[in-house]
Amino acid sequence: MIVIDEEHIFREISTKRPQSVSLNGPEGILAQVQKTAINITKKFGIPAFVIADTTWGSCDINESSARTLGTGIHFNIGHTISMDTIGNTVMVDAFDDVSFDSVAVKCAQLLKSGTVAVVTDSQHLHQIQKVVEILQKHGIKTVIGAGKGQLNDGQVFGCEFYPATSLCNDVDSYLFLGQSNFHAAGVALSTGKPTYVLDPYFNEVREISEFAELLRKKATLSIYKAAEAKRFGIVVGLKEGQLSKTVGLKFKKELESLGKEVEMFALTDITNDRLVNIHNVDAFIQVACPRISIDNKFDMPVLSTPQAQGLLRVLRGENLDEYLRLPHWL
Amino acid sequence: MIVIDEEHIFREISTKRPQSVSLNGPEGILAQVQKTAINITKKFGIPAFVIADTTWGSCDINESSARTLGTGIHFNIGHTISMDTIGNTVMVDAFDDVSFDSVAVKCAQLLKSGTVAVVTDSQHLHQIQKVVEILQKHGIKTVIGAGKGQLNDGQVFGCEFYPATSLCNDVDSYLFLGQSNFHAAGVALSTGKPTYVLDPYFNEVREISEFAELLRKKATLSIYKAAEAKRFGIVVGLKEGQLSKTVGLKFKKELESLGKEVEMFALTDITNDRLVNIHNVDAFIQVACPRISIDNKFDMPVLSTPQAQGLLRVLRGENLDEYLRLPHWL
Repeated sequence: MIVIDEEHIFREISTKRPQSVSLNGPEGILAQVQKTAINITKKFGIPAFVIADTTWGSCDINESSARTLGTGIHFNIGHTISMDTIGNTVMVDAFDDVSFDSVAVKCAQLLKSGTVAVVTDSQHLHQIQKVVEILQKHGIKTVIGAGKGQLNDGQVFGCEFYPATSLCNDVDSYLFLGQSNFHAAGVALSTGKPTYVLDPYFNEVREISEFAELLRKKATLSIYKAAEAKRFGIVVGLKEGQLSKTVGLKFKKELESLGKEVEMFALTDITNDRLVNIHNVDAFIQVACPRISIDNKFDMPVLSTPQAQGLLRVLRGENLDEYLRLPHWL
Repeated sequence: MIVIDEEHIFREISTKRPQSVSLNGPEGILAQVQKTAINITKKFGIPAFVIADTTWGSCDINESSARTLGTGIHFNIGHTISMDTIGNTVMVDAFDDVSFDSVAVKCAQLLKSGTVAVVTDSQHLHQIQKVVEILQKHGIKTVIGAGKGQLNDGQVFGCEFYPATSLCNDVDSYLFLGQSNFHAAGVALSTGKPTYVLDPYFNEVREISEFAELLRKKATLSIYKAAEAKRFGIVVGLKEGQLSKTVGLKFKKELESLGKEVEMFALTDITNDRLVNIHNVDAFIQVACPRISIDNKFDMPVLSTPQAQGLLRVLRGENLDEYLRLPHWL
């Protein structure tokens, strides 16, 4: 069950005494966010608005929406990072209280020996030490990569993997705590190492390489398709932490020097539905969020930043290389 | 063909000499907006970003997106209003050069006599006088309602109909210039009078009452369905000109006094896809844009402001009345 750190929220409200507040969190925990909003109104008698727009990460906290709404405090829930606030937004933890005890034992028995690094996402960060202890008790040498920037020790985002990639030469494999194939595939692709999902709900250990390899092949195919395009659209993201205008303009310049035509676009949510409205563009490069390109289906090639770097290499007749073997896909 | 007033855009850029600009316009004219962006870059050598997010009207001009993007001038194209600017956004005309000469004659022959008011949307405003002349030459008494607020003489928005409603007692019917059943149905519902679409592309005159009546029945059914709901969600819109927080909070208070439970939400685009993520809510009231409720399909009742006013009457045991017979659906 997801447990939101309501005490943190209540302390902030007690201190700052706002007239109203806003909250948002990813779709998977929206029911809990709604309950927290109800609890706030009961306790403090102020309106608590749940912003039900997408919030994909700490790059997408809807602070500008909160500003439009004019609430006194804005809480972004469920994206635990190494900082308590981003701008005027208060970052609030939402931890899953499910136990990894059983699946950690199962994993140790499966691996038998070797050195592993444990990584996880925001919801299971508090479990990481306990899993390390279980693994070590069963003879598995276990390490946790150091955090960097917004990332805590052992934490990975969908696009950023420093605590994994920094240990690439020191470990045999990675163990991802949670259910997210999405995050685990990112670890596998950024490190090139075997990566196992320790799923506490299914009490199952699954290797993610095959799924990750499918994503990689799809991403590579898009690069080669895009190489044949004549007209490119470069899409800059309009979410607070996804604006990479300079990167977008740099790609424009480089593609034009290689004989391509380029138009510039901006979008809040980069979806196939929005892109199909755009005319006479053979391929897109979006510099907002790498996962948009790697995880979604589009009617045309839509490259992320590392894929676009790969494309430039292909267009220059260079080797494509391991374009996803990076600690940060931006 | 849609003709964007590029000279207006070029004059603004020549005067203000921005480092970059942004443009946006409704989906129907996006191809032309792209061409204008290309022309700007060719003429001035600066990046021109097409913001490809939705822009439903002068209530939704994406100024906050332009601010995020940091462009020197933001142009909203195709929503002609009585003002040249809204905030820092320059409003640019986009006129359709199709002729109404033939369909106006056809309409005069069909009507034979009587008094009509001519109304239209942004794209055909420049044709209105010519159609009046043709109709009068054929013996049809023709008037144009005075503009009000952002509306020019004879202009209607999807939600605002003053140039139509102000003539309600003086005319037999309304003629809408263009292809938009959406706007024409608004005129029919807000006035209760026969309304004809003069479609210059199909060279066809069509009465819109049946379609409008279907929309009204669907809207009324939603009110009665919502009356049975226990838990309400009130959704405030996050687009610049759609924020009606006070109206939303007023509905909350009134529904609670009638024994309903109410949660507050905020959304940028109010779609079924976003609302189905919200838990334990039986019916929604959205105070952003009335057309969202009247024109779209939702899995649950989603009432607009005039429908919510109707709901309050129903819950108080009063007569529902003609809740859409209003000059402005907000």
